[in-house]
Parts: sequence; C-alpha cells; structure tokens
Amino acid sequence: MNVQELMHSIGIQARDAAVVMARASTVQKNQALEAIAEQLLADTATLQAANEKDLSAGKSRGLDAALLDRLALTPTRIAAMAEGLRQIASLPDPVGEITDLCTRPSGIQVGKMRVPLGVIGIIYESRPNVTADAAALCLKSGNAAILRGGSEAIHSNQAIAQCVRVGLESQGLPATAVQVLETTDRAAVGELLKMKAFVDVIVPRGGKGLIERVSNEARVPVIKHLDGICHVYIDDQADMDKAVAVAYNAKTQRYGTCNTMETLLVAEGIAAQILPMLAERYLQAEVELRGCDKARTIVPAMTTATEEDWATEYLAPILSIKVVSDMDAAMSHIRHYSSQHTEAIITENWTRARRFLNEVDSSSVMINASTRFADGFEYGLGAEIGISTDKIHARGPVGLEGLTSQKFIVLGDGHIRL
Amino acid sequence: MNVQELMHSIGIQARDAAVVMARASTVQKNQALEAIAEQLLADTATLQAANEKDLSAGKSRGLDAALLDRLALTPTRIAAMAEGLRQIASLPDPVGEITDLCTRPSGIQVGKMRVPLGVIGIIYESRPNVTADAAALCLKSGNAAILRGGSEAIHSNQAIAQCVRVGLESQGLPATAVQVLETTDRAAVGELLKMKAFVDVIVPRGGKGLIERVSNEARVPVIKHLDGICHVYIDDQADMDKAVAVAYNAKTQRYGTCNTMETLLVAEGIAAQILPMLAERYLQAEVELRGCDKARTIVPAMTTATEEDWATEYLAPILSIKVVSDMDAAMSHIRHYSSQHTEAIITENWTRARRFLNEVDSSSVMINASTRFADGFEYGLGAEIGISTDKIHARGPVGLEGLTSQKFIVLGDGHIRL
Repeated sequence: MNVQELMHSIGIQARDAAVVMARASTVQKNQALEAIAEQLLADTATLQAANEKDLSAGKSRGLDAALLDRLALTPTRIAAMAEGLRQIASLPDPVGEITDLCTRPSGIQVGKMRVPLGVIGIIYESRPNVTADAAALCLKSGNAAILRGGSEAIHSNQAIAQCVRVGLESQGLPATAVQVLETTDRAAVGELLKMKAFVDVIVPRGGKGLIERVSNEARVPVIKHLDGICHVYIDDQADMDKAVAVAYNAKTQRYGTCNTMETLLVAEGIAAQILPMLAERYLQAEVELRGCDKARTIVPAMTTATEEDWATEYLAPILSIKVVSDMDAAMSHIRHYSSQHTEAIITENWTRARRFLNEVDSSSVMINASTRFADGFEYGLGAEIGISTDKIHARGPVGLEGLTSQKFIVLGDGHIRL
Repeated sequence: MNVQELMHSIGIQARDAAVVMARASTVQKNQALEAIAEQLLADTATLQAANEKDLSAGKSRGLDAALLDRLALTPTRIAAMAEGLRQIASLPDPVGEITDLCTRPSGIQVGKMRVPLGVIGIIYESRPNVTADAAALCLKSGNAAILRGGSEAIHSNQAIAQCVRVGLESQGLPATAVQVLETTDRAAVGELLKMKAFVDVIVPRGGKGLIERVSNEARVPVIKHLDGICHVYIDDQADMDKAVAVAYNAKTQRYGTCNTMETLLVAEGIAAQILPMLAERYLQAEVELRGCDKARTIVPAMTTATEEDWATEYLAPILSIKVVSDMDAAMSHIRHYSSQHTEAIITENWTRARRFLNEVDSSSVMINASTRFADGFEYGLGAEIGISTDKIHARGPVGLEGLTSQKFIVLGDGHIRL
C-alpha cells in the first residue's frame, strides 16, 4: 500500500467511526475516558519503556536538553495525563444541545442542535501527552480523530495510542475512532491535509514552521494560531498600581506562552511617571528592554527597538516598549503589528475602555486584566485544543465547543410550504 | 498596474474600509441602506440603460432566453432590490452583542462579543440584484465587501455599485466599503481567492462549476454549498395524510431550488399503500418518476433509477424513489448519497423521530415538515447570503450572523494571573 492508499484507508475508517461516535451517549464517552485513564496508569512501565526508545534515539540524534525534557514521560507525567482525561470526562457534553428553538409564523419550530464536526486531524510535535489530550477532546465531543505526532515521539505515541484503543473498545466504541499514524513519512501529512472527503478540520499544534506548512498546504479547513504578539496599552487615565501590576504580570508570569505580552504601549501623558517604576521591576526580573526613542529618554537602560522588534514574538524575557500619543495611536500600532491574539488596555476612562473593547480586532480583548488570562482553563472552557487567531468558526481558546458545529432542526406536524 | 497589483490595492482599501465599517453605528448603517435604496429608485432610468448594454451584448453572444430574463432589470425588479435593502435595514444588528458573560473564580468577567469578519469576497453569476443584496448584507454586518459579478452583467453591476457608493458616502461611510470589480479578467478571481492578508472569507454564489473552482483554488476560507440532494423518508409509522402532503410539497412546490427533495425513501411496510397515492399526484403534476425495482413493482409507471440517479440534483420535475427496509436503511442511503443539505423523516414514532434528528448529519434535519422550509427567511434569519453545506463556521442558511465572528472579552479591575 502506498502512502495515499494508506491514508485513504485510514480516512474511510475514521469516517465510519465518526458515525458511531456521533451517536455515542455521554455516559459511554465518559466511561471510555475513564477506561483510557486507568489503562495509562496500569501501563506506566510499558509507556516508560517505549519512551526510553524515543529518548535514546533523540540523544543519539543530538536533541537538546529542553527538547529531551519535553519528550520524557515520567510516572508523574503519566499520572497527569490520566488526570487530564478525567477532567475532560467531567466537562459537560456539548453534543445534542438544542438552542434558539422558536415557532415561526408558518407553524414549524426551528432551532439549532450542536453536533460533532466528524473527523478531526491533529498534527503536533514533541510532547507525547498531546496524544492523550487531543484524543480525549475529540472523543468527548463525539468526533473521530486522526493524530500525527512528531517522529521523535513515535514509540511513546504508539504506546499511548494502544491505551486509547483498549479504553475505547472496553466501552464498545470503535478502536478506529482514534488513529495515531504509525508512519513517519512526511507525505502522509501532505495526504492528510488534502483528504476533504475524510477530514472535516485540521488542528496543527506546534512551532511556526509546522503551522505555516499546514496552513499553506491544507485543502481542508484549519483551526490554527500562528503568532502571539500581544500588547498591553497603558492609558494616561490608568490607575498606576493596576497598570504596574498588570503590565508586570503580562510579561513575567511566564515567558514562553503565546498570551505573554511582547510589546508594551504607554500613553505619552503617563510615560514619564510609570516607565521608571515598571523598568525597575522588569530589570529586577532580568527582562531585557527595547524601547522607542521617547521611551529611552525616560529609561536610558533600554536598547533601541527596531522595526523588527514590533513584529516579533520573543517567547523570552525581552520586552519592546513604545510611547504613543494616545489610544488611537495605540490602536493603530496594534492594527499594524498585532497577531490578533490578545490585547489589553489599562484605563479608568469609561468611554475609552468601551471603544478599545469594541474596536480592537483580536481574539481576546481585555480591560484592566493581564493578557495571561487568555487561556481555555481561565475562560472556563475546561480544556483547550489550541488558541485560534483565525476569525472563521472558532476564535480564541478552542474547547470542546470548537470541535462541534450546529445543524438546524425543524419540527413539524405535516407542515408544508405554501 | 497588473492584475495582482490591482487586486492588492483593492484589498488594502477594503481592509482600511473594514476598520471604519466595524465601528459604524447601527443607525449609520441603516441610514446608508436606506440611502442606497433611494438612489436605486432615483437612478431607475440609468440602471435600465446600463442593463440594456448587457442585454444586447448577451443577445449578440447568443445567451438563451432564460439567462437573458435573469439578467434583465425592470422597474419592478429595481423596486424589489430597494425593498430588499430596506428589509435588511430593519433586521437587528448582530454586531456588538455580548453573550455568556460570567465571572470566573479568578475574579475576571469573561464573555463573547459578536464582531464583523472583516473583508468578505463574493463571487457570483448573472442576476445583478445580487450586487445590491450582497452589498447590503455585508454592510449591515459591519464588513467591507469585494464583489465580483459575471461579465455578462458588468454594466448593470457597475451602475448598481455607483448607487451603493453614493449611499455609503451620504452617511460618511467609505465608498470603498463595497468595491465591485470593474475588470472581467479571470485572473482577478484567482488573485481574490489567494489574498489571505486582505480577505477573511469568500462566498461563491452560482452554478456548480463556479463553486468547484472557488473551492479548489481558494486559500482563503470559503462558505459554500455545492449540491442540494435532499431526501424525505416516509417511515412505516407515518401518518398517511401528512406523508403525502409533505412528500408532494417537498418535490413540487418549486423544482429549481436547492432545498427541493430529489429522492424519496419509503419504508417497505408502507410502500404498497402510499406509493400509488403519491404517484398519482406526482404524475398529475407531470413529475417523471424513476424507481428501484421494488418501487416499480408497485408503480409500473416509473422508469428504472440508475446508480447515477441517487447522486443527482435534478433541479427539475424528476424524482427518484427507493423502497428501503427500515429507517436504518434510509439513514444509510442518506449517508451515502446526501449532499448534507436537508433531510426529513415523516413518522409518528417518537423514538425514531428522535434518532433521525440526532443521527442524520445534514445542515437541516426535519421531522414531519417539508424540505422546502430550509431557507433563511423561513428560519427567521431575515435574509441569507447562501446555504452552507460545510460544517465549519456556518451551516445551513447563512444570514447576518454567519458574516460575523465572536471574540472573547475580559473585564477586570487590575486582575493578574497568579
């Protein structure tokens, strides 16, 4: 079987499994999640042995320490995976929810019913826990999944896949509802991205290179996020304490996350007052500061920010700072450089807060809150498959609901159209 | 300027206009729609003169009578266009709606705000009224639009575009919020389909050839519907009167629409009773019947349905009829041949009705109602830009809401993440 035939046969199996998954009951799906969790715990030794193969292959390929750490499956991490599955089991089932049911003048009742998307393809890198996590989200939302992990985690992923299959079958669900590709052939990804007949949506999770490839090659719809170039704008009517707290938190609470602030915009009227206070805290935390000329006049301990800085997601203890004349200038900078992930304003001014909230076109827009809150758990989605910076279908953190769609339902009593 | 440069400059203007449209007030948008309506009526003579150029070009190109009729702009049709704009003005504004606002354990308030998509590209054929209609839907939903009509209607479309521009500018809105392409170069469409930076979604409206081309070439998300192969399944526990009324209405109320039934599935247990009654009515209405062997045994006045028939959207007074053993067989036929547009069951059986509603994976699923109800107006959307048979973003009739997205909003008081 060549790669195309292989992928088509996987696609057909996924399509068939999706029909079964769509009508699986909530209890059945939750019990399957619980069974998978138990299997992962029972198979801890097997998982570690498989992981050991990946780790030693990684070492001999010269992977760096950070990558090897991400790849490692310890008993603690396996327990955390199992706990993640149980948390997903405890979330409300989105499937079958009926909303907006109303009676029309013709006499028919019209409403919307939430339904699974069908088959979801997920392409990801490194961390093997994504295999369990992504499988669980697809399962709970009544979808079938085709998962393609990184080749460096192939043995770990296959061992986890085996636990998923055992759990599914223990509840009478098809093992093919979650298929983890065994081939490491890159052509398999190319095929997956083009199988419109078998795949309803692709979710890439990983570095920018992966996401750009998927986005450019896919003929199937994609839920993705490319960059997280998030901004905080401190207005001249900001509360100083709130502004310092939020701007500090948004940068330093974690450096490597997509909702971390990368550029701080400060209104000219407050810059001389607030920048020295903020700079002191950032420098204590060893954050490198890169500023515009005005910012550097106020805080000389900054290097000069270049055009490239405004367009960079550092994912590191580096912050670019720009002094702007007012909120309109801030919004204009955001329009130009933002990746439409998350932006926040700090202000006590009612009208400006409302304008910022209405006019900034990002997946999350915040008033007086840290950009670090842009996260499925913090928003109450319970779990997230990713954060979308697209506008179609799902925007911002994508939870179970983002893996579903709504169909119209019409209830009648022999109604005909006149 | 070559086509690529031209399209990029149109894209940049649309992007800029979208920023203004997104913050336009409901009153401003409604008054612009009213101004466009008035301008269309005032320019009736100009519109007819432009239309005359298209009609005579069409005649000399040998367009058939049906196409020429669709192309014609009469004073009645111009008045209907103006009335359509006023109806869209009277619909609720979807933009700015805030839902699901709740307070999280962290103290932040999280909700969703409905926002325009940005720039919408619409590619359509023949009927010039689509120019006004599509422009109005985009305008009301706070979007900018790039419209590309058929070359056979170029003069009519440009005359309508002029009215749209006058109306927009009269309310201080940018004329570039609705750009109707003046070029008939096919390469312009190719460019439009690839301009990810400037276009958020493409909506093709027209024949299957157009939609397939758009779907295959687009790198921008597409809201489309390809086929309307709709089914009615008459269960053996159906009420006979309701079954006859609905099955007759679903086929004969209009033949050329996408929500017209193309295949009738009848349970074996009721076929001998109901098929003769139904056939009599269909044959009176001069509907050609094509049946499976079992159906033909009951009603010999049918030709034999081929494999191709089950997969054909006739859009004509032709109906294929299949006798199936039970609802599961009907659902299996639907899974195989349906275009996932609209399917209906006729039954008095509670459990079967619920199963059909849950398990059939189409954009509209109906119980005891005619498929002809699958329509934006009948569903109370007020207007529709099309009917989507995709699952991502919008499914079924797409109204103003389908031209919007939701962003997350977070309201805090200096909240930081711990």
